[in-house]
Amino acid sequence: APKKLLILPGDGIGPEIMREARRIMDWMAQARGIRFDISEDLVGGASLAVHGQPITQQVIDAARAADAVLFGSVGDPKWASAGFDRRPEIAILKLRQELGLFANLRPAKVFDSLVDASTLKPDVIRGLDIMIVRETVGGIYFGTPRGIETLPDGSRRGINTEVYTTAEIERVARVAFDLARKRDNRVCSVEKCNVMESGLLWKEVVTALHDREYKDVELSHMLADNCAMQMVRNPRQFDVIVTGNLFGDLLSDLASMLTGSLGMLPSATLGAKGEDGRTPALYEPIHGSAPDIAGQGKANPLAQILSFAMLLRYSFDMQEDAAMIEKAVSNVLDRGLRTPDIMSAGRTEVNTAGMGEAVVAE
Amino acid sequence: APKKLLILPGDGIGPEIMREARRIMDWMAQARGIRFDISEDLVGGASLAVHGQPITQQVIDAARAADAVLFGSVGDPKWASAGFDRRPEIAILKLRQELGLFANLRPAKVFDSLVDASTLKPDVIRGLDIMIVRETVGGIYFGTPRGIETLPDGSRRGINTEVYTTAEIERVARVAFDLARKRDNRVCSVEKCNVMESGLLWKEVVTALHDREYKDVELSHMLADNCAMQMVRNPRQFDVIVTGNLFGDLLSDLASMLTGSLGMLPSATLGAKGEDGRTPALYEPIHGSAPDIAGQGKANPLAQILSFAMLLRYSFDMQEDAAMIEKAVSNVLDRGLRTPDIMSAGRTEVNTAGMGEAVVAE
Ligand SMILES: CC(C)[C@H](C(=O)O)[C@@H](O)C(=O)O
Ligand SMILES: CC(C)[C@H](C(=O)O)[C@@H](O)C(=O)O
Repeated sequence: APKKLLILPGDGIGPEIMREARRIMDWMAQARGIRFDISEDLVGGASLAVHGQPITQQVIDAARAADAVLFGSVGDPKWASAGFDRRPEIAILKLRQELGLFANLRPAKVFDSLVDASTLKPDVIRGLDIMIVRETVGGIYFGTPRGIETLPDGSRRGINTEVYTTAEIERVARVAFDLARKRDNRVCSVEKCNVMESGLLWKEVVTALHDREYKDVELSHMLADNCAMQMVRNPRQFDVIVTGNLFGDLLSDLASMLTGSLGMLPSATLGAKGEDGRTPALYEPIHGSAPDIAGQGKANPLAQILSFAMLLRYSFDMQEDAAMIEKAVSNVLDRGLRTPDIMSAGRTEVNTAGMGEAVVAE
Repeated sequence: APKKLLILPGDGIGPEIMREARRIMDWMAQARGIRFDISEDLVGGASLAVHGQPITQQVIDAARAADAVLFGSVGDPKWASAGFDRRPEIAILKLRQELGLFANLRPAKVFDSLVDASTLKPDVIRGLDIMIVRETVGGIYFGTPRGIETLPDGSRRGINTEVYTTAEIERVARVAFDLARKRDNRVCSVEKCNVMESGLLWKEVVTALHDREYKDVELSHMLADNCAMQMVRNPRQFDVIVTGNLFGDLLSDLASMLTGSLGMLPSATLGAKGEDGRTPALYEPIHGSAPDIAGQGKANPLAQILSFAMLLRYSFDMQEDAAMIEKAVSNVLDRGLRTPDIMSAGRTEVNTAGMGEAVVAE
């Protein structure tokens, strides 16, 4: 039976970049006879507009039934005042939680042909290749108690709770150590153990797991504030970074921006292997919904296309096809084609569809 | 009566850079007859070694009685395994909390003569001048419940609580708005309101205060992850940033590192004006205790010296003397003197004392 692929374009530039990823799927079907069982549905603001909620139970069930989810992006200023319970962002948070997608893999990689796109000096970032493994179903994102309460004097108090358990820390650290073994064999664990007990436990659990099962991997520890600095000072010192949900949110965005080409970076979020042998997985670009440029054909579809390649590689075990897409992308870049976000003097500017077509042509 | 100044050199490079700040004080006394009532005491690892605790009640009382505190830095790997309750870092956390030092002002400024010291391209950071106002007595640093508990099955759970009240948010936002009026009149408030209710309250309270009392100041809002990216993409878009304790910790370190000259940046942490008309205040370099280079004469004393200038300006209202020190520092840089951290080709390398002497000479 063909693999089940659920496509969730979402908001902003999501739909237009997803169209280019589908162009690749169409080509695979026509030129190579590879067919998936594809369905598409609404999330985020797009779902709010139709269903009054950022994600429906039906979509969650479809995601659970799928072999993999290809996600665009959510977030739409139109819904900014819709209230905390109706944020478009709930779509991705719920998918992570309900499918148990606990490990967000975010590569920050500098493409040789785009080394000048960064605001950092070429010498500092050439060859940069960091993999951030971010925990995504725990920490302050989901801990309770949480909420805003009104005090007797009429003033208010906002509360969130960061919670991490031994098991939650271990399983994401395991992902990081396993990945490191296939890379440069180094893991840097990041927390704020000089201030937060949850960070202290994080450090202890990662260390214990390392000493028990991953002694061959080089483990270091870094405070989150120092990590933010080190990423700017000398980002190439890192191989794999493992960290919690909140620090991972900031640090992975920071790391991506170092590359200067956010529009190029895919990500994967993986769950635990189920009894049926399947690993729930969601693939999405690192960038957001960019509502300011939505619908103008300016968006770079490559992160979405590379997310699809990542999906083929990790979820469908289609290494060759993944490599073919990745090669096509780097050929297109070598040919000098650029969407506006990565445009520089002497290159050829193309729009979203132009870039998608060029990848197919390659 | 002379102003009371408490000096707390702390750990690592703290004592050696404080020595250079004292050189300036000595010069002020000899050459200009300006005398302070100076006392000096131990904090951090230095206090742990003598008193078995990172800060004594006596030092806290002395800080409370002083007109201003000049702090070096704390943190010492020797005490890494001393336990969570005996971290050197407790010294600064306790001082903040006991003196109610709620607003940490961290300028990130690029010195023209050091524009090449940054890992960012000169065009991106030339003229950079950001002021980060970080809340420092609330949020997840101090919220309860907190701690590590052992569950019935033997596994553990680490917990921290982020709490912000209307009053805590308002008073720090007020500092930011007041500062903006003396600068480029723009405040960017940073939180993670799409995930955390405490961030949502933060945003609402800042907005309400703005609309009530600071309509003349331009207010914008940014998510913390986006802020981390924007700092790398285009840091000059910011004037004043106001944010909570944890985000402020990462973002202010990130902003400082953009300048490439961490060893140059001072900071102030201010409390609320008391009934006696005094505002509790602590001044310290942005950088840490750098144990790896301690005692080698390699440390850059300028952040400590500029922290003293900031102290003169804000706490002692000695504008001229502050300006004189700041001018001396920039003259020394223009003359090409550099400590190893900011050394570049064609400049003259000096050690810690050499730099301090050069500033005095100017
Ligand atoms: C959309 C938002 C809730 C999300 C997050 O904060 O996790 C996003 O920033 C991300 O990093 O995937
Ligand atoms: C030493 C440490 C507790 C402190 C903090 O996290 O606040 C430091 O990093 C700072 O930013 O002043």
